[in-house]
Amino acid sequence: MKRYESLAYEFSDAIRTGIWRAGDRLPSVRSLARERGVSPTTVFSTYYLLESWGLVRAQDRSGYYVVGHPVVRPPEFDGAKADVAGHVVQPKVIDRVFDVLSAMLRRDVVPLGAAFPSAHLFPLERLGQLVGKAARNVDPWSTVDNLSMGDLRLRRNIARRYAATGKAVHADEVIITNGAMEALNLCLMSVARPGDAVAVESPAFYGVFQALERLGLRAIEIPTHPEQGMDLQVLEQVLAEQRPAACWVMSHFQNPLGSLMPEEKKQALAEMAARHRIPVIEDDVYGELHFSNEALRPIKSYDRDGWVLHCSSFSKTLAPHYRVGWAIPGRFIDRMARQKLTFSLAASMPAQVALAAYLEQGSYDKQLRLLRRTLQSTQGEMLHAIAGSFPAETRCTRPEGGYFLWLELPQDVDAMTLFRLALEQGVSLAPGPMFTARDGAYGNCVRLNYGLEWNDSVARAVQWLGRNLKAPAPRQAA
Amino acid sequence: MKRYESLAYEFSDAIRTGIWRAGDRLPSVRSLARERGVSPTTVFSTYYLLESWGLVRAQDRSGYYVVGHPVVRPPEFDGAKADVAGHVVQPKVIDRVFDVLSAMLRRDVVPLGAAFPSAHLFPLERLGQLVGKAARNVDPWSTVDNLSMGDLRLRRNIARRYAATGKAVHADEVIITNGAMEALNLCLMSVARPGDAVAVESPAFYGVFQALERLGLRAIEIPTHPEQGMDLQVLEQVLAEQRPAACWVMSHFQNPLGSLMPEEKKQALAEMAARHRIPVIEDDVYGELHFSNEALRPIKSYDRDGWVLHCSSFSKTLAPHYRVGWAIPGRFIDRMARQKLTFSLAASMPAQVALAAYLEQGSYDKQLRLLRRTLQSTQGEMLHAIAGSFPAETRCTRPEGGYFLWLELPQDVDAMTLFRLALEQGVSLAPGPMFTARDGAYGNCVRLNYGLEWNDSVARAVQWLGRNLKAPAPRQAA
Repeated sequence: MKRYESLAYEFSDAIRTGIWRAGDRLPSVRSLARERGVSPTTVFSTYYLLESWGLVRAQDRSGYYVVGHPVVRPPEFDGAKADVAGHVVQPKVIDRVFDVLSAMLRRDVVPLGAAFPSAHLFPLERLGQLVGKAARNVDPWSTVDNLSMGDLRLRRNIARRYAATGKAVHADEVIITNGAMEALNLCLMSVARPGDAVAVESPAFYGVFQALERLGLRAIEIPTHPEQGMDLQVLEQVLAEQRPAACWVMSHFQNPLGSLMPEEKKQALAEMAARHRIPVIEDDVYGELHFSNEALRPIKSYDRDGWVLHCSSFSKTLAPHYRVGWAIPGRFIDRMARQKLTFSLAASMPAQVALAAYLEQGSYDKQLRLLRRTLQSTQGEMLHAIAGSFPAETRCTRPEGGYFLWLELPQDVDAMTLFRLALEQGVSLAPGPMFTARDGAYGNCVRLNYGLEWNDSVARAVQWLGRNLKAPAPRQAA
Repeated sequence: MKRYESLAYEFSDAIRTGIWRAGDRLPSVRSLARERGVSPTTVFSTYYLLESWGLVRAQDRSGYYVVGHPVVRPPEFDGAKADVAGHVVQPKVIDRVFDVLSAMLRRDVVPLGAAFPSAHLFPLERLGQLVGKAARNVDPWSTVDNLSMGDLRLRRNIARRYAATGKAVHADEVIITNGAMEALNLCLMSVARPGDAVAVESPAFYGVFQALERLGLRAIEIPTHPEQGMDLQVLEQVLAEQRPAACWVMSHFQNPLGSLMPEEKKQALAEMAARHRIPVIEDDVYGELHFSNEALRPIKSYDRDGWVLHCSSFSKTLAPHYRVGWAIPGRFIDRMARQKLTFSLAASMPAQVALAAYLEQGSYDKQLRLLRRTLQSTQGEMLHAIAGSFPAETRCTRPEGGYFLWLELPQDVDAMTLFRLALEQGVSLAPGPMFTARDGAYGNCVRLNYGLEWNDSVARAVQWLGRNLKAPAPRQAA
């Protein structure tokens, strides 16, 4: 990382943590350059970067000022609302999800409801070149050898990246899968049998409910804080009293809330899993998309006895269509390897060798920095647009990574109706009821995706949403 | 196809059907050339090809003679042995399979127990070139659009190939999967729920039992004829009386028997499925590997009401490590599409676009002809080696395609013991008990793979097996 970048991260962290506050004037270019022993050009680059992130604004001649956070309040959280009976996922939940997903597969919509960042944010051309080079040199034995666990070079490179997160991982602990979705499904099948219950977040990624429904499992929804993640007190009670087969959780930038578990909570969860001898499936697909300057430690990094089954992928950072993910299933590795072998034998080799070459070439970290910057900046843009056009009662998250905002709209807004109206206007969104198995929950919530190239049509789409919340139509329809 | 090739296929069919018999002298080059209006060179090429297939032999100066079939009798079949109680697959079946599979992942063994043909029979370099070209030109939208069903160009090309088998298939009916294994598993999950029974062949591909065990399903094993496939009388009785959730069957060159269902049986099975309204999962991964000159019609081609879920892949004909398969799930397409979407979202794109380019380029049929010829010729070599070194009581299939032989060894041979002894000698084989959920069944049977480059070490491996059957060691150990 260049000097001006690390300096910018330092300021951005200080602004996030409140050391610098809205309206504060940053040091002059000259004084900061002298103080830090860098050139004025470096400081200019730093301030320019902070401006592109939407964190500071240049005021002509008088210098750079910290921009006020948009006036959006964080969503409410009431852990006491816990409803831990254990819901069997009904097919109608799944129907709801499919209706929404299929409606979003249109090229002509502004994809605020999408689950992936825009493909324009990925280095697809560079990957294409590598896939060609790599595929020409495939050892015929690789079609047999180690086929099921995945390409050894790729597993080594993935294992290596965990060193930065404080976890020594060996290539033998990693199983390559057909995206994180397959990893998560196979992990679930390794630890749960039909009829079992699984503790999940609320709201949670809809893929969780789809997986539970497929296997005939019950969902126990644990209240999840919009900033700090799953409520561990409620979870502990559920683990002790109901003995679910597993707990499925997203540690970093949870989908849809964007919550980030603090270190002590991640550690506590790892210890809780070992104490209760209950497997924790950690979905960490967003972990690399942090806006702060430090690599995040997954729950897995606190796992001593192998109770954490950690899953991730390259789908949110490099290439969704390559479908390369992985699992580090801890003590369940043999069961998981069998599941993989018998379910789909192995992951596709051309994509694996291309990604191995890409990782060895060393430009992944650069790509990640670029992606994080873009996301940080489009998050700022979207928050501003929301603050400017949504009703004052709106509550909205401000996650420290990932690319989802979670909005609690005024009580009388029906998110499913809003979804349909917006789609007619060429705007998609992900309505709250997709993220729960409980009827009626999150009816006035939506998830918006800011992982896209910000432009006028996106800004107009957000404004349209805000304005049409106020209009009577959606309320009447609700 | 060139003239000499079609002429060779004509003779090969005539030899298989007994029109030409062992010891018969083929027409002289001159007379055949005159009779068929071709050049003597063409006839020479034809006879040369037949010789390479092991079907004829040149006797110096006196011409070409039909080679006698090796003296191996077909395995016995007694449909009355049916045991149709419905067995829950025990984990020990699965353990048995895994022990065998993991022992075979050694580069230093002669892989007679392998499930795939040798990678040396595949055009890996050409595919590697195409994957590179194709991957460089990926439309970023392909990461979103149609992602789940699979690359549209590939689906069109697959659909087109079914025209030759008498079945009009549209690209919209095809779902690309992560190999046929995933297709079969997702089809099964689309039609069966935990606790259900499924009618399967006996012996059957071990992947069937692994899939049933995972889902907590019972296996009803239907006796399967070594030449003609599943016993449909027993099946009909089971469908009527036990109402299984599905029937899972291999129409062409069944694994492990190599049986080929006659046309009238395939048609009858399709009609039976519709009559009983019970889905038939057709695993047709070996269908392209026929030695006769005509494309085979899958059960699906007789399916009018969509009760047949047809699955296949490129893993046995082009590239196992690309993991590209497909399903044509008939009336279950919506359920199956949901299973695919929620289980692993989509198949890896680089492998798909490379295969689409390969199919469009038009050399697949040439590759298939080459592969079939090689397999036909190595089958002949292996049958000769078996006839020359195995005890006279040995019974052995002589399939009309695929790359598996199924051997019934003398009653006192224990295949699991033979497997272990052979592995110590650097030879693998697939013991019979891998192919059933019933304890004690097929204990004296083995499956051998002839999909490899024939050479001295392979010949010695087969001879070693035959000789060590006669030795007392395996019998005592059994």
